Amino acid sequence: MNPINTFVQIVLVETSHPGNIGSVARAMKNMGLSNLVLIKPKKFPHQEATALAGNATDILDNAQVFDSIEEAVKSSKVIYATSARERSIEWPILSAKDASVEIHQLAAENINVSILFGREDRGLTNEELQMANKHIIIPADPEYPVLNIAMSTQVVCYELFQASQKEPLGPWKDFPEYTAEELNYLIQHFNETVEALDLVDKKNPKQILTRMERMFRRLYPDQMEGNFLRGFLKAVNKRIK
Amino acid sequence: MNPINTFVQIVLVETSHPGNIGSVARAMKNMGLSNLVLIKPKKFPHQEATALAGNATDILDNAQVFDSIEEAVKSSKVIYATSARERSIEWPILSAKDASVEIHQLAAENINVSILFGREDRGLTNEELQMANKHIIIPADPEYPVLNIAMSTQVVCYELFQASQKEPLGPWKDFPEYTAEELNYLIQHFNETVEALDLVDKKNPKQILTRMERMFRRLYPDQMEGNFLRGFLKAVNKRIK
Repeated sequence: MNPINTFVQIVLVETSHPGNIGSVARAMKNMGLSNLVLIKPKKFPHQEATALAGNATDILDNAQVFDSIEEAVKSSKVIYATSARERSIEWPILSAKDASVEIHQLAAENINVSILFGREDRGLTNEELQMANKHIIIPADPEYPVLNIAMSTQVVCYELFQASQKEPLGPWKDFPEYTAEELNYLIQHFNETVEALDLVDKKNPKQILTRMERMFRRLYPDQMEGNFLRGFLKAVNKRIK
Repeated sequence: MNPINTFVQIVLVETSHPGNIGSVARAMKNMGLSNLVLIKPKKFPHQEATALAGNATDILDNAQVFDSIEEAVKSSKVIYATSARERSIEWPILSAKDASVEIHQLAAENINVSILFGREDRGLTNEELQMANKHIIIPADPEYPVLNIAMSTQVVCYELFQASQKEPLGPWKDFPEYTAEELNYLIQHFNETVEALDLVDKKNPKQILTRMERMFRRLYPDQMEGNFLRGFLKAVNKRIK
């Protein structure tokens, strides 16, 4: 069994056209993947999705549908978000190929991974992009770099398949023990503490918190570290009150 | 200017769904390509093609339409055909990635290249596959390896773009001086000669000729070699009569 298939889920956020969902299902099956997650799809199930899925209707049948990304990625330890945009605060960014090699490593160590793909017309919001540990870009012509959603999924799934054909290189260095959900609580706790300490710039309140969120997501804390940080924040809050 | 854009053309053979033509145009433009050739498209121009092309409608506007592959690839010196099938006589075969590195080399030396993509339902015929010097496969899950036509084009164009970001490695070894059309005449001349010499197995007449065609296509003869072979065949035929 291909570990990428077991441990990686493809998450489509608020897809408008059901045909794209079908095309993604086929692209996934062509490349040996099967875990499809849909966040608030406009129309699903739908005959167009089924038509474009080809022999991959089983992937549509087994697709999980959620109302929020948070719910969908709860058990994932590493979250990747695909993005075509440059952002004001740069997140750690990888090419589809390099990300796939990394994801192959993670899957080989039984670590759950989610890969987020955004809406047809406007991709992922900044808030959604910030939920990810890292961003994936597909190298493309700067004059017109925005791929169709199904095409983006095809390229990423293709690179995942390419990566899966190689042996994992060795143990993953930044082993992420903490789940995405635990990390969210830690970040929330930290934000509350920063606010309680009155450290937020009133003119630009989100700037510093976003930078700190990026740091935490890059950190991949393990269980011990995460627990210690939570305890630390708890102690700080006690002093404030 | 990206040489791959100048010297490479994407050839779609008898595409049924105009939406696929539009998706291919967008996939090409995303990856810095622009030369689109259509062989007997079922419906073109068509609003669905335009809708799916996104900002790549210029590629549709400039697409060349032909009645035959021969006409379309006349000035190409190397022809690649995408294929998902195993064939009884194996043609030289490359992965999308390795082919792209090779095509990047060819384009850097101003050599015209055509890449053929087949029909939605049944790909390219054996006769069409035999017109190619080499075949391209997209590595995929053996359980369901057949990608949608637009998706195949996306993956190949993506790999071409990846290859174009690197410097060409050095001069191309098997420099093909001969055009595809000249090579066709040579093969035809050879076939006629073999038949005139009564060397064809009556029970299986195509077998040996197909193998010899494959040899000629792999040969990339230069002008001098091609002319000499034609002269040789002419001399042989004179003796037969």
